[in-house]
Amino acid sequence: MNSAELIHVLYLIAIVAEAMTAALAAGRRQMDWFGVALLGCVTALGGGSVRDVLLGRHPLSWIENPSYLLITSGAALATILIARHMRHLRRLFLFLDAVGLVVFTIIGCNIASGLDMPLIIVIASGMITGCVGGVLRDILCADVPLLFRAELYATVSIVTGALYVGGQWWGLPHQPVMMAAMLTGLALRLLALRFGWSMPKFTYTESLH
Amino acid sequence: MNSAELIHVLYLIAIVAEAMTAALAAGRRQMDWFGVALLGCVTALGGGSVRDVLLGRHPLSWIENPSYLLITSGAALATILIARHMRHLRRLFLFLDAVGLVVFTIIGCNIASGLDMPLIIVIASGMITGCVGGVLRDILCADVPLLFRAELYATVSIVTGALYVGGQWWGLPHQPVMMAAMLTGLALRLLALRFGWSMPKFTYTESLH
Amino acid sequence: MNSAELIHVLYLIAIVAEAMTAALAAGRRQMDWFGVALLGCVTALGGGSVRDVLLGRHPLSWIENPSYLLITSGAALATILIARHMRHLRRLFLFLDAVGLVVFTIIGCNIASGLDMPLIIVIASGMITGCVGGVLRDILCADVPLLFRAELYATVSIVTGALYVGGQWWGLPHQPVMMAAMLTGLALRLLALRFGWSMPKFTYTESLH
Repeated sequence: MNSAELIHVLYLIAIVAEAMTAALAAGRRQMDWFGVALLGCVTALGGGSVRDVLLGRHPLSWIENPSYLLITSGAALATILIARHMRHLRRLFLFLDAVGLVVFTIIGCNIASGLDMPLIIVIASGMITGCVGGVLRDILCADVPLLFRAELYATVSIVTGALYVGGQWWGLPHQPVMMAAMLTGLALRLLALRFGWSMPKFTYTESLH
Repeated sequence: MNSAELIHVLYLIAIVAEAMTAALAAGRRQMDWFGVALLGCVTALGGGSVRDVLLGRHPLSWIENPSYLLITSGAALATILIARHMRHLRRLFLFLDAVGLVVFTIIGCNIASGLDMPLIIVIASGMITGCVGGVLRDILCADVPLLFRAELYATVSIVTGALYVGGQWWGLPHQPVMMAAMLTGLALRLLALRFGWSMPKFTYTESLH
Repeated sequence: MNSAELIHVLYLIAIVAEAMTAALAAGRRQMDWFGVALLGCVTALGGGSVRDVLLGRHPLSWIENPSYLLITSGAALATILIARHMRHLRRLFLFLDAVGLVVFTIIGCNIASGLDMPLIIVIASGMITGCVGGVLRDILCADVPLLFRAELYATVSIVTGALYVGGQWWGLPHQPVMMAAMLTGLALRLLALRFGWSMPKFTYTESLH
């Protein structure tokens, strides 16, 4: 299995994991089955879609591969059946969610660097791919996006992207750099979850208006 | 009147009806007159705009026909004047809103099939056109989108699109299939409203985090 | 300094001011430093991005000039340091925010008229550029957008755009018309802030459903 195939397999695992965690968020809002399926699709595929719309890159991945819609909505609906056992699978899901974050980030970086974008945009593309799906999920649930308050979620994406882009810029070989960036990001996320690490918060209580 | 003309007339009725129901939502949030007009435009034209942005199809309908902006903002503002009588028109508006849902769906299907999209994307395009305007309205009102909890709203759109696409795929003549799909969708929506039908809900109370 | 250079300098001032006011909104929601930086970027650059996506115009400004991402996220983070003094700078910020509104509006009008769009779309493009960043900020904070309830904010954008477009349409020279439109818009916004002017509100208490 070469690195492109590995990324594709990890991508499929990641969209399934994202769709399933989105289904649980939908269940907390008592959405109907249709809402569950839709929130699964939007969360799993929304980051890549926003990235492609901002980059002006068409067709979007799920328009080119409509099976992604079936996979993510199917995974979200299956979650309804197994929800009672999800508690025991909590660690597995947090792990798969972390895998998804770094895989989405690498894919987003690859797409922008394939378009010869500047380095900052390559990292931003990785971060949009990794994080925007969860932001859309939270907007559709009328929550303040968790991203802005969670354990290093976006930071992990930026670190992963910066290592990957920086390593390639230094002329290091592609595949080891990619692996090292993903494993570092994954470790950082899992440590942040384990020890409750978070970015410092900014609290401001006065109104400007 | 051929079927393209009929669809266009129904489209104009639908965007007026969508803009007027959006104006009532704005009034419930005590928005100012500008907010009323803007929410009317976004609700009536937002579904088609999101569809076209996702499909990479330009120019958007209201950029090509700026009169749609005047029609929908005018309809929303007119609603302020007649709001006190809206209660008596409640059934008419729910009917026109249902007409709008199936008409938007058919239009969205036509646009995607005109771009030779796969069947799943044609149905998804119909659903996005029919439903996303209301989702944007609810996001701008900071509500959890009604779509995820309402009486078969999105289901009606999927059923309408699937009948329309399926009938054409089976080689049935275009115009009767379109009419049958629209009437079936309309009947399903009106029955759902009348009898309070809804999709089963998924309730999940534990936190994954 | 010609008018294009003036607009560019004012644009840089405007994105800094927008990013800093967004940082305060983030602080009110106790977002972490990353959320502060991101909300700054989205608020300052989001209006232009949505405009370009709707017009199908690529690359987006911040993809062409990635330094805008650094400027706006840097300005947002710097706000954390000086937040305790912001109260004394309140009037300066409201002034710079008003400058940003009219400058964004003029830039949005220029871009649409450069694409030979009809007059209504030119004015709408100015308004989207001027106002949508703040709407995105409020959505990400899970608030009903202030735009729909604030002191003539969107009205100022429409008046500025209409004067600018109308003056050019009447054949008046470009630079004086632009200056007059900007100063009129700025004066209107400052008077609205000073005297608490607002659009009449529409209140509707019954449910259609």
